[in-house]
Amino acid sequence: MSKGTFYNWNDLPQVDMGPGIKRRFVSGEKVMSVQFVLEKGAVVNKHEHPHEQITHVLSGKLEFTVGGETRIMTSGDVLHIPSNLPHSAVALEETLNLEIFSPPREDFLTDEIPDYMK
Amino acid sequence: MSKGTFYNWNDLPQVDMGPGIKRRFVSGEKVMSVQFVLEKGAVVNKHEHPHEQITHVLSGKLEFTVGGETRIMTSGDVLHIPSNLPHSAVALEETLNLEIFSPPREDFLTDEIPDYMK
Repeated sequence: MSKGTFYNWNDLPQVDMGPGIKRRFVSGEKVMSVQFVLEKGAVVNKHEHPHEQITHVLSGKLEFTVGGETRIMTSGDVLHIPSNLPHSAVALEETLNLEIFSPPREDFLTDEIPDYMK
Repeated sequence: MSKGTFYNWNDLPQVDMGPGIKRRFVSGEKVMSVQFVLEKGAVVNKHEHPHEQITHVLSGKLEFTVGGETRIMTSGDVLHIPSNLPHSAVALEETLNLEIFSPPREDFLTDEIPDYMK
């Protein structure tokens, strides 16, 4: 990759990840940015992955549980999740969430739906 | 790191990076998230770094030049910059920008001001 690539979220394909959850992504070699749109009541079941994660809530309200600790996250809240730490979430309102993964989630590259969302 | 860490941007220290540019960061081992607040007219001079970058404009208007291509970026626009590709930016309005780096920017960890901002 020897050039910059410009995107707009609205132009990128949106994948249904599970009930009330849609995702889009932009990925490089070392890092992936994923936009999640969660409807109120949407649930991300407890799961873990070797990919390091930083979650940014841009709008809405998300109840996030990580390593046994539960917090309500709203706009401006950020969460760092180290590799292989179990986490889960429930959208208390419609929520726009930006999640960063390093390395990129290989399963998202192939539009795969993770087992924890089935 | 065996636990999740919750932050809010407003609680994190803000560093003056140069005229009209302030930054805050959250960093893990493999990836760093940096919030930039740019005043209208603020300039990020042309520079490059080995760190892969994904830029997200959250609000405002940014004229971004990368690899010789210039685009106006507004809310919802995303830009992937591969390693070592020169880039620069001018804030056309007050802009809130989220930039992701992998690996983390070592110079930001020490509150260093890059040469290109001096």
